[in-house]
Amino acid sequence: MTYLLGIDGGGTGCRAALADMNGQVLGTGKSGSANIMTDMNTARLNILDATEAALADARIDHSAIPSLSAVLGLAGANVGSNAAQLQAMLPFRNSLVYSDGVIALQGALGDHDGTVVILGTGSAYVTRVGSDIRFAGGWGFKVSDLGGGARLGRDLLEETLLAYDKFHPSSPLTEAIMERFGGNPHRIVQFAHSARPSDFGSFAPMVFEYASQKDDVALALLRKTIGQIEEGLDAITANNPTRLSLLGGLGALYGPLLSPRYRAQLQTPLNDALTGAVQLAAQNFASKVTETVHG
Amino acid sequence: MTYLLGIDGGGTGCRAALADMNGQVLGTGKSGSANIMTDMNTARLNILDATEAALADARIDHSAIPSLSAVLGLAGANVGSNAAQLQAMLPFRNSLVYSDGVIALQGALGDHDGTVVILGTGSAYVTRVGSDIRFAGGWGFKVSDLGGGARLGRDLLEETLLAYDKFHPSSPLTEAIMERFGGNPHRIVQFAHSARPSDFGSFAPMVFEYASQKDDVALALLRKTIGQIEEGLDAITANNPTRLSLLGGLGALYGPLLSPRYRAQLQTPLNDALTGAVQLAAQNFASKVTETVHG
Repeated sequence: MTYLLGIDGGGTGCRAALADMNGQVLGTGKSGSANIMTDMNTARLNILDATEAALADARIDHSAIPSLSAVLGLAGANVGSNAAQLQAMLPFRNSLVYSDGVIALQGALGDHDGTVVILGTGSAYVTRVGSDIRFAGGWGFKVSDLGGGARLGRDLLEETLLAYDKFHPSSPLTEAIMERFGGNPHRIVQFAHSARPSDFGSFAPMVFEYASQKDDVALALLRKTIGQIEEGLDAITANNPTRLSLLGGLGALYGPLLSPRYRAQLQTPLNDALTGAVQLAAQNFASKVTETVHG
Repeated sequence: MTYLLGIDGGGTGCRAALADMNGQVLGTGKSGSANIMTDMNTARLNILDATEAALADARIDHSAIPSLSAVLGLAGANVGSNAAQLQAMLPFRNSLVYSDGVIALQGALGDHDGTVVILGTGSAYVTRVGSDIRFAGGWGFKVSDLGGGARLGRDLLEETLLAYDKFHPSSPLTEAIMERFGGNPHRIVQFAHSARPSDFGSFAPMVFEYASQKDDVALALLRKTIGQIEEGLDAITANNPTRLSLLGGLGALYGPLLSPRYRAQLQTPLNDALTGAVQLAAQNFASKVTETVHG
């Protein structure tokens, strides 16, 4: 008897699901950051910790580890040789390392063709037609990730300073932001100087909140941002006008604001990314085991 | 006999000019960085080094230092208590510490009312009506400095990735940038990850170069950026529709591209910022000396 393992790993944490060869989940576990871009070895250790927690949850001895067949969806796996490097370091019988976007797409769409846009701190597009999976966007806060929370929050701070200088009109939203910084624009500058993308992103929910109260600055920011998201959709779904799901912390907030033609394609995600990893493990490895039995 | 001293200090270096009480320059000197935001003490030492070099150039003994009457224009002098702190540390008889924008404005406009926009790596607006001087913009690369070289260069890298993803059209300019990074978008991301504002700014001249060849992406970037600069001018020159000078490395490139109404106001800068500092020293201290003589 052997088992399937699904892993969903990123900067904030790592989740594991242990399943039988039919993809039935037997136990789950969690651990810390598994960012293979910034720290490959910590990622490896946290993948193993989450795996052991999932085995314990399923009451299976950890001596099963060398027999596991795993699919891992990891942020940064599409960059350079990251995926191959990690693959060589893992103790499982089989390991398939994908980008986190691949397991998110599988989870959200199941086996359907379609597109997901992951709108969290960053933004990224993944689209699938049959076995052809394509990525776009997601190049990071500095030069990409339009529509992501970090860019939206940064835009809001910029608008607040433009309103302070009277270059743009102020609004209740820019006034609320200015008040948070004690009315002192230098404190916004200091904050921005050392802010991480997630720090900028912490202001993004306020834009949606004030937009629902018809705040002019909030509405203008979202109009621009939704335009950018739909430019991406125009390009990536041109040959694939089927299912569409918006994922990530801001996905559900953006959904109702899309143009009617994209709103009509919107589907509630079927499952989460971890379930997507388990499904892919079942697709990739369950049949191979059968072959071995019959061989 | 005493002397006037003008200082123009910033992140890249410090320049000093020694002048007689009529503002006639007798000698000049240079030294290293005088950024009072990041390192007050190094700034103080480099101000003294440049001063000693100017005294040597004028063949005046450095024992004259305690009798000098100085005007210093320094980046960061408008932030918090920086100016007062530095003032207390200087060995001159009189020291007036201004923002670098003030001496740039005085140099460019002389005693005329008007507005300068400093368009270098960053961007900042300074306007004067009589003795009333106002600042706007210039809050830094992260959340401000629209139209500055760093923002323009960053925008170009973003457009190059948007063209790579086919979200926006490509052009000879985006193709030239992509080629510089070996055709590999990940290398743009890596560059951006550790780029300083001046690193992004190094791409700004290419935008002007390609715009002159009617490159669509370059033209669109400059259209957006000039719109932002003119929004600032609309706000800041509303009560001061007189002289206008564009300063900094990109000032002369932007000038011919402004709308006719602003082009009509454009004046070649009369003098540089260091000359502005000497003029302000003459205005502030020459009459006081006269008072002392007559007193």
